[in-house]
Amino acid sequence: MTPVAAALSYLTEHRDQHLSALYELLSIPSVSMDPAHRADMVRAAEWLATCLRHIGMHHTEIVADHGLPLVYSEWLGAEQAPTLLIYGHYDVQPADPVAEWHTPPFTPSLVGENLYARGASDDKGQVMAVIFALASWLQTSGRLPVNVKLIIEGEEEVSSTLLHRFVADQAERLRCDAVLLVDSMMLSPQQPLILYGTRGNCYLEVTVRGPKTDLHSGTFGGVVDNPFNVLVRLLAALQDGDTRRVRVPGFYEKVCIVDDEERAFINRLPVSDAVLQALTGVPALAGEEGFTPLERASIRPTFDIHGISGGFTGPGKKTVIPAQARAKLSMRLVPHQDPVEIGELVRNFLQQQAPSTVQVSVEVLSASWPVLVDYRHPTVQVASTAFAKAFGRPAAFSIGGGTLPIAATFQKHLQAPLVITGFGLPDDNLHAPNEKIFLPCLFGGSAMIIHYLAELADAYVLR
Amino acid sequence: MTPVAAALSYLTEHRDQHLSALYELLSIPSVSMDPAHRADMVRAAEWLATCLRHIGMHHTEIVADHGLPLVYSEWLGAEQAPTLLIYGHYDVQPADPVAEWHTPPFTPSLVGENLYARGASDDKGQVMAVIFALASWLQTSGRLPVNVKLIIEGEEEVSSTLLHRFVADQAERLRCDAVLLVDSMMLSPQQPLILYGTRGNCYLEVTVRGPKTDLHSGTFGGVVDNPFNVLVRLLAALQDGDTRRVRVPGFYEKVCIVDDEERAFINRLPVSDAVLQALTGVPALAGEEGFTPLERASIRPTFDIHGISGGFTGPGKKTVIPAQARAKLSMRLVPHQDPVEIGELVRNFLQQQAPSTVQVSVEVLSASWPVLVDYRHPTVQVASTAFAKAFGRPAAFSIGGGTLPIAATFQKHLQAPLVITGFGLPDDNLHAPNEKIFLPCLFGGSAMIIHYLAELADAYVLR
Repeated sequence: MTPVAAALSYLTEHRDQHLSALYELLSIPSVSMDPAHRADMVRAAEWLATCLRHIGMHHTEIVADHGLPLVYSEWLGAEQAPTLLIYGHYDVQPADPVAEWHTPPFTPSLVGENLYARGASDDKGQVMAVIFALASWLQTSGRLPVNVKLIIEGEEEVSSTLLHRFVADQAERLRCDAVLLVDSMMLSPQQPLILYGTRGNCYLEVTVRGPKTDLHSGTFGGVVDNPFNVLVRLLAALQDGDTRRVRVPGFYEKVCIVDDEERAFINRLPVSDAVLQALTGVPALAGEEGFTPLERASIRPTFDIHGISGGFTGPGKKTVIPAQARAKLSMRLVPHQDPVEIGELVRNFLQQQAPSTVQVSVEVLSASWPVLVDYRHPTVQVASTAFAKAFGRPAAFSIGGGTLPIAATFQKHLQAPLVITGFGLPDDNLHAPNEKIFLPCLFGGSAMIIHYLAELADAYVLR
Repeated sequence: MTPVAAALSYLTEHRDQHLSALYELLSIPSVSMDPAHRADMVRAAEWLATCLRHIGMHHTEIVADHGLPLVYSEWLGAEQAPTLLIYGHYDVQPADPVAEWHTPPFTPSLVGENLYARGASDDKGQVMAVIFALASWLQTSGRLPVNVKLIIEGEEEVSSTLLHRFVADQAERLRCDAVLLVDSMMLSPQQPLILYGTRGNCYLEVTVRGPKTDLHSGTFGGVVDNPFNVLVRLLAALQDGDTRRVRVPGFYEKVCIVDDEERAFINRLPVSDAVLQALTGVPALAGEEGFTPLERASIRPTFDIHGISGGFTGPGKKTVIPAQARAKLSMRLVPHQDPVEIGELVRNFLQQQAPSTVQVSVEVLSASWPVLVDYRHPTVQVASTAFAKAFGRPAAFSIGGGTLPIAATFQKHLQAPLVITGFGLPDDNLHAPNEKIFLPCLFGGSAMIIHYLAELADAYVLR
């Protein structure tokens, strides 16, 4: 039996044991944006560190340094072999609205081959797929084919502040030949996907302040501007209702023009409009005029409102003119839009539109750069080969619609090619109720990693 | 000492005792729209019934009949004298946002001459002002100058369902010569106000449904219409941002054209723009083009958004495309707009504007008619005289911006002139945090009622 075959066989034989471990991790509500879950963050990090020591990693430490704990682990025993940095995160989004979950979000529940839990797909399940692969190599060969540096952070959902600093400060220690980011998805259980770029994001909060206190709309309706009435006009002004284009001057100025060849390449992805419509359940797809849904989800920027607060939203009726109304919104950005500049453009636009009857403030909550990767690099291409061996089909390539804020930092400080991929699925309900992971993808993902470590060692020798 | 002087003197001497009674009533959180407070509603009604029996009303009963309890009380011992029906309500709005109260909403707190509590002004304080007046007459003269039928309902903030039925069913029993509605305000502590009309209201809930579940805006941004993006466009379309006019075709068709003489009369009210701006604290007043603030608050219809729900509004960032977004909104209506017809017009307009990429539903939560009263009727004019005796100045007359849904029902079934007045103030923070009543207005209101009962008896004899 080859070492790869031995590792794969170990993976299969220990499936139940691996699942039990994943259940334990998913049961810890490591919600990074909620201060009430600080102790759970520490518990999850310690659980991971214990696990990594147990499977035979050489050195594992928890880095805190004024942030939520980050788990760093190394196995550097492969002389003359390349070094792979692997990235994932153990923090999760809040579970709200909790009432819409069919099973408790922090009690892993297996229904058929789908495992339901907050973090099942984003990203605990994928992190554990990596650990299962490392364990399978270490427990069968006593070694890994390449050197591995593993980072599992706890702040992915809250801006990765600690990790950005850690990468910048420890660039020498983190030096590597490739970075594998495992926090993405496949197109289907049969079709793996590697992203050669991801969109950036500019997240804003807009506040409209009117009267000094909430007012009765009978007494003061018609006398003062209602902050909600103003807010909806401002938000509506941001996007053309017909073309769905953002109306902010300069917004599209730096957008990378993708040539017809690459557009055709993107549209070859085996994801039809009918599939997208069935996945989302909308009456009809919609988006920027002149582009296909696949293009609009990858090479074009977007504008989405995420929530609006103020006034009264309880049961029944309350006739209030609120003292203030506030909206959370964000724009997905593409190369080479500058997220900080976009924030300024939007702020200026909104403040120019604002009437003098209210005060409008615009706060940039985060600004993340888009990323572009050279998908022809061998370390990227052998990842596709590893997928072919694990799933029977090489990876498709695309640009990711979501944002991996840390990818730009890895690229900047480590100057190594990035492989952005993952083992989730488009219907995994990320950031939504009833998040799940499909177990054949999870264990196929472990097999892909097992192959990838071997392929990467070979590619390095061949060079 | 005249009977009136005796009653006034009793009122003054028992001020502390009266205040204690009011504190007790304000301490009961009788929030009619919250099912969690059902027991408090019963408690408040029983407290009032006990109080009315104690002061010497002939007959007092609690009417429940599938609704929240209504208190009905009679004193009918004045032969050959007219009968006055007095109306108030003991239910209150919810206290949210509770965090913005400086004192606990259901712990009455006296700061100088202002008494803070939910319901202090709307309407428990005013109801107790009436009861103090009745008590002062009954305890000093052993009788009232006119017959009194008193209705204190518990559903004013939730559509008065029971009372509408009660008035329709018991019209004969409720027969009277005038109806005094005590649920309004003065212009200032020195300037009483009688309303000769009130605006109606059409309260709607608009729901935009898009994807079958919340989606990640990275994966699906640009692929589907975000229900919030659509909702803000629909809401913005309802009102012209420049003229502040409602854009729904037919909306203004039945609006009563007020002649220049009456407009001049309305604008003579001693409420300057500077006063309105100071009261509300807005950077600048705003409203429908072509009308003064006083006109816009009385003889012109309005459009206000009260709350928008869906998506994520907690601390931090969440990049969600919500499955649905919902808005609560209402339009204040003026004679002779039909609230049911207006609801239909708005529904049709919104559904015509809605793109086929989402489902839009519009629910009418309530529809209340505007009211017009003949302010020259003697029962109305002697109310102004009673104000002059109690406050040193006769009442100003205006049309109320708020809605008293029950007024139209009284007018329809009892065919008696309405006197719509009250002892609150414009800065009482109705329906908002830190609601209060100014005690000189409250006790002046009791004095006004003491005078009014005598004046009404005289007016009846003179006729």
